[in-house]
Amino acid sequence: MSLKLKPLGGRVVVEPIEQEEVTAGGIVLPETAKEKPQKGVVLAVGPGDRDEDGKRIPMDVAVGNKVLYAKYGGTEVKIDDKKLLILRESDLLAIVEE
Amino acid sequence: MSLKLKPLGGRVVVEPIEQEEVTAGGIVLPETAKEKPQKGVVLAVGPGDRDEDGKRIPMDVAVGNKVLYAKYGGTEVKIDDKKLLILRESDLLAIVEE
Amino acid sequence: MSLKLKPLGGRVVVEPIEQEEVTAGGIVLPETAKEKPQKGVVLAVGPGDRDEDGKRIPMDVAVGNKVLYAKYGGTEVKIDDKKLLILRESDLLAIVEE
Amino acid sequence: MSLKLKPLGGRVVVEPIEQEEVTAGGIVLPETAKEKPQKGVVLAVGPGDRDEDGKRIPMDVAVGNKVLYAKYGGTEVKIDDKKLLILRESDLLAIVEE
Amino acid sequence: MSLKLKPLGGRVVVEPIEQEEVTAGGIVLPETAKEKPQKGVVLAVGPGDRDEDGKRIPMDVAVGNKVLYAKYGGTEVKIDDKKLLILRESDLLAIVEE
Amino acid sequence: MSLKLKPLGGRVVVEPIEQEEVTAGGIVLPETAKEKPQKGVVLAVGPGDRDEDGKRIPMDVAVGNKVLYAKYGGTEVKIDDKKLLILRESDLLAIVEE
Amino acid sequence: MSLKLKPLGGRVVVEPIEQEEVTAGGIVLPETAKEKPQKGVVLAVGPGDRDEDGKRIPMDVAVGNKVLYAKYGGTEVKIDDKKLLILRESDLLAIVEE
Repeated sequence: MSLKLKPLGGRVVVEPIEQEEVTAGGIVLPETAKEKPQKGVVLAVGPGDRDEDGKRIPMDVAVGNKVLYAKYGGTEVKIDDKKLLILRESDLLAIVEE
Repeated sequence: MSLKLKPLGGRVVVEPIEQEEVTAGGIVLPETAKEKPQKGVVLAVGPGDRDEDGKRIPMDVAVGNKVLYAKYGGTEVKIDDKKLLILRESDLLAIVEE
Repeated sequence: MSLKLKPLGGRVVVEPIEQEEVTAGGIVLPETAKEKPQKGVVLAVGPGDRDEDGKRIPMDVAVGNKVLYAKYGGTEVKIDDKKLLILRESDLLAIVEE
Repeated sequence: MSLKLKPLGGRVVVEPIEQEEVTAGGIVLPETAKEKPQKGVVLAVGPGDRDEDGKRIPMDVAVGNKVLYAKYGGTEVKIDDKKLLILRESDLLAIVEE
Repeated sequence: MSLKLKPLGGRVVVEPIEQEEVTAGGIVLPETAKEKPQKGVVLAVGPGDRDEDGKRIPMDVAVGNKVLYAKYGGTEVKIDDKKLLILRESDLLAIVEE
Repeated sequence: MSLKLKPLGGRVVVEPIEQEEVTAGGIVLPETAKEKPQKGVVLAVGPGDRDEDGKRIPMDVAVGNKVLYAKYGGTEVKIDDKKLLILRESDLLAIVEE
Repeated sequence: MSLKLKPLGGRVVVEPIEQEEVTAGGIVLPETAKEKPQKGVVLAVGPGDRDEDGKRIPMDVAVGNKVLYAKYGGTEVKIDDKKLLILRESDLLAIVEE
């Protein structure tokens, strides 16, 4: 089934990854930090924002990337019972390689 | 009947789509998220905002597109008993393909 | 009688149109929306704001256009007992064609 | 007597015009609007603000123009018992022709 | 005695002029305006701020100019018992010619 | 073990250095200052933010640099029980050479 | 002993100068002004901020300069029992020549 959402501008669609409490060698996100990042996988990538001359700024993430993103950002939608997020790329903090 | 509203700048006219509670394979928008996106169809598209040199920035959506947009945005008008919204394109989150 | 106000920069002079409650095939503005747009006719158009290089950005509306504008904007003046508004063009939402 | 104030940047010196309550065919400013514009005559005009490259942006008003300006703006000074205002040109709304 | 302060960027050093209450033909600053301008003489002028390309923007005031400036701005220092002000040029309203 | 986080844009990954209370000839961070900087070592460096034309702005820090950074900034993540920070380079104050 | 801090971007490292209460011919900073400037000597100078095209903007102060700076700015660190400040150059008001 192909994704039904095409994000606009510099936005991406991310599917949150449920987070195991402790992993061997994996990333565990802290419980007490005031700003908790979330982990997710990129499902769709917009065409990029435009610079001052109207040209597209290329996106730095690609479909399939695992990313950390700020928890407070984005807008939640549901597709076929999956909870997805539409985020701006600037709300993504890092790509996670595993 | 042709649309009587020509949006200015980077604005679009959107007709909200009433949302069925549950659909098979469709998009269901969450009830509990603090920021609920809405679904609608684009009825008219403005000429685009101007960049720093006064040139038009092309619009990314077209008449007929189904879009998700942030609920808080835009201004409501009624034409022939239809409730329409005038929104900035930057308030549109994604194009929905079905 | 010619208009006595020449708006400066990206401003326009608009004469509000009194709004009939219900019209057949016309635009009826909602009573309950938190941000109510108003309808008016453009009486005068400024020379346009300047871009970063000091060049004029052309105006998108012309004298005679019927427009919707955000209610909260602008400054009210009275000329010969007519209540007029001086608005920035960016406060205009759409041109209404009838 | 020549004016003793040379405004800097994009500023102008304006002498407020006392406003008759009602005039035949003249402009009468409303008493109830939340933002009341004032009428005045331009006594001096600054050299203009600078654009991003440091070049002057030409001023749109000239000495002698009658103008409407937002009441809240500017700084009041007294010269020879005349109360004058130093305003930014962007606080001027329109030129009044009579 | 030469001045010991070289202002940085778009700043100037101003020595406030004590203001006589009433002068014949002179400037008298109002007592009741909410924002009272002050009069002073420019003692030193910085090299100017830089524009977007890092080039200096020339200053519009010179040493010896009498200026009006917004009262709230600037930082006060004392040199040899003289109270001086370091202000941004943009806080200067007008040059006073007498 | 190689780092699993690739910071995006102008971000860096920093591992905080536990701070000894007093060191001979070392840097001791104050206890009473309202804004306390922290010391850490740079583990990963993003590709840099983009300028107005979409070109990368080179990063000024490199992997291995010891840096001072503002305490309030950044987002905390845990990798293999190490607490790391994802910070914008602009939150880094200085490189510490020892 | 050479300085161990290399400030980043448009930042400088300043060592505050303890201020004698009264000096003959010297600068005495006021006790009552709401914003008190401080005097210090520049110990290290960063490479400069970058302009919109990513090029460095040259710094206007040099190592050894005595400067006045706004008291509220900067971040305090201690090196070998000396209290130093990391400040942005834009928080420096003037160079003091003695």
